[in-house]
Amino acid sequence: MIATGVIVEYNPFHNGHLYHIKQSRELTDADIIIAVMSGHFLQRGEPAFVDKWTRTRMAISNGADLVIELPYAFATAQASDFAKGGVLLLDALQCDYLCFGSEQGSIDPFLNTYTLLEEQNASFQQFIQEFVKSGLSYPSALNKAYQALIPDSNAQFVDLSQPNNILGYHYIEAARKFQTALKPTTILRKQAGYHDPVQEGTTIASATGIRQAIYEQQDIEHVSGFLPSASFDLLNEWSQGNQPFASWTYFWPYLRFTLLRLTPGELKEYAEVTEGIEFLLLEAAKECTDFISFMKKVKSKRYTWTRIQRMLTHIFTNFTWSQLKSMDTPRYIRILGMNQNGQKYLSERKKSMSLPLISRAASSKEPMLLQDIKATDLYMLGLGKNKMGLDYRIPPIRI
Amino acid sequence: MIATGVIVEYNPFHNGHLYHIKQSRELTDADIIIAVMSGHFLQRGEPAFVDKWTRTRMAISNGADLVIELPYAFATAQASDFAKGGVLLLDALQCDYLCFGSEQGSIDPFLNTYTLLEEQNASFQQFIQEFVKSGLSYPSALNKAYQALIPDSNAQFVDLSQPNNILGYHYIEAARKFQTALKPTTILRKQAGYHDPVQEGTTIASATGIRQAIYEQQDIEHVSGFLPSASFDLLNEWSQGNQPFASWTYFWPYLRFTLLRLTPGELKEYAEVTEGIEFLLLEAAKECTDFISFMKKVKSKRYTWTRIQRMLTHIFTNFTWSQLKSMDTPRYIRILGMNQNGQKYLSERKKSMSLPLISRAASSKEPMLLQDIKATDLYMLGLGKNKMGLDYRIPPIRI
Repeated sequence: MIATGVIVEYNPFHNGHLYHIKQSRELTDADIIIAVMSGHFLQRGEPAFVDKWTRTRMAISNGADLVIELPYAFATAQASDFAKGGVLLLDALQCDYLCFGSEQGSIDPFLNTYTLLEEQNASFQQFIQEFVKSGLSYPSALNKAYQALIPDSNAQFVDLSQPNNILGYHYIEAARKFQTALKPTTILRKQAGYHDPVQEGTTIASATGIRQAIYEQQDIEHVSGFLPSASFDLLNEWSQGNQPFASWTYFWPYLRFTLLRLTPGELKEYAEVTEGIEFLLLEAAKECTDFISFMKKVKSKRYTWTRIQRMLTHIFTNFTWSQLKSMDTPRYIRILGMNQNGQKYLSERKKSMSLPLISRAASSKEPMLLQDIKATDLYMLGLGKNKMGLDYRIPPIRI
Repeated sequence: MIATGVIVEYNPFHNGHLYHIKQSRELTDADIIIAVMSGHFLQRGEPAFVDKWTRTRMAISNGADLVIELPYAFATAQASDFAKGGVLLLDALQCDYLCFGSEQGSIDPFLNTYTLLEEQNASFQQFIQEFVKSGLSYPSALNKAYQALIPDSNAQFVDLSQPNNILGYHYIEAARKFQTALKPTTILRKQAGYHDPVQEGTTIASATGIRQAIYEQQDIEHVSGFLPSASFDLLNEWSQGNQPFASWTYFWPYLRFTLLRLTPGELKEYAEVTEGIEFLLLEAAKECTDFISFMKKVKSKRYTWTRIQRMLTHIFTNFTWSQLKSMDTPRYIRILGMNQNGQKYLSERKKSMSLPLISRAASSKEPMLLQDIKATDLYMLGLGKNKMGLDYRIPPIRI
């Protein structure tokens, strides 16, 4: 039984994701597709568009056999930790392959880049530090350091200015560094750029573009062409129930209250908040009455938009540097959903898996899991919902 | 020039308050009435019904010449600290008299009680501790200890089961203990019990009763008989502007979010939160979807409703035990409003006052003042208002 893993957010699940699952299955001749998926807060530092159970339904309705939650500590982390969390979970799940989408589309350049940067790691780190000191954001510094190390920009190496290539690089790094048995493969992402808006006459659009279109038009009909029908139906059901699609704009009153309640000294304890920016966060929260003006005020060359949003995510969910540092590797396999195929796989393998399986959060005191549960509660409050502790109550989705 | 001080909340200003000001002026032959008034959070651990500037207008329109803010640290504290803050401010303002309303109505029993409890302080404290250990709330324990010390309950001593008598006792205690020059006097409170509902055919009702009637009827017309016209007009103006009257019920979404965001270990750092109750607070915040159910779940014989509300106030405004302990005595005289008479008094006396006068909060780093400013910001966010830093912008009210 060949198991292939994918690391995903499905925010929301669209035709590009469907293509990714199908291609992954075909390319690796997989009997089972296991998706490790983020919960209620995502790698770009945002609340998920719809809740994790709805996104699990989308995944299983569209070809995933088993959906596992990427814990908050990794789902909201910078690329290398995000990748590490996903890769270690897939390895614990005994996957044979990891298949990721990339702008590059073939695996060899990733392996070449990995070998190059491993061999020249000392110079690479030194370059990065210098560029960060000169005022660049970390991703820009990393890319510039990398450019300085490759003799010519050619097809032997991967272009690390592309977001999915960066993630892909970190997947390979994690798979090698932790000596996993995962065989990494990649497929060419069949879509416009990561952040591009939706375009008529096409069927593939980025999740960012789809969300943007829905926020702007306050309606989902006109994005139906970019979503598999099961995914569209679930979004439709969500909005029929008068549930708002989550965003920082929607959560802003709680975020602003939380910021203004804290002192500068407290703010800098939160994960990803680096010295100095706490004063700016407070000043902007005082002045700005909406999220976008707030972000524009805080944004600088020094920090990417995404990095600032990740700080806000950690402030919102009360997640500190010290918690982040104590959560090095995944500690459990939390099942969000499965079909019969997924269930069969679990029954066969569960005894030999290296991490405990969790179907429903019980009275665990595991801090990593407690943070997932807290993230759910605060996400639900942000949406104006009243029921707390859903992680204790909702069993894995079965379709 | 005789100056008489009153310590008040005016939540909102009603006919009983008007009577108190008039009687205080008459009894002490005062040329000027100075009111030390709480800001946006009150001694019973609640957000003020309307903001402090509106309540200042009410006070000056009804006979107060000068309104000074009782800092958050005292305004939200237990009776003895509340009294200390008020008394020390009135003394710093060089008042000749302090005149408080009480169920007792004459001053001698207060002085007798004070002398008795001073002389027998050791036994008194021991009794209180024993009663608290046996499971009584602090106020009940205090009253029971007191009952054990007086030979017979007679008119020589004051009845300390009455809320305004308790406050009065603490005024005298503070005035004596800090060797102030204030001469304490009292008048009989001309109204039904502290918490009694409004009754037709009368003109005096408790502030609690008036607020309750407005919350319940969603309308202020039917309480007009209990309010001086200036006070009624200001409440009317407030509600015409579609501004909600503040309450925990209204602030509940923010309070609940704040509670659920915190860990038990963090919760017990907040002022008045004593070991053990933090778990109950969290459990109740998870289960209960409105403030009253929440309170009913947390309430026990051990803690008064008021005490629990004070904990919540401190959690809401991020005010810790360590801050509370560091704020022993008032550090400034913050002017909220005045008439010409009040202004003249200030001009004459300001050079000899023992604390700095503040008209508008400037870029002070005084922690006591920063907490007043934070309390205003969070109160305004609770009400759904967007303008922050009003303490920096609104000059003293002049009428």
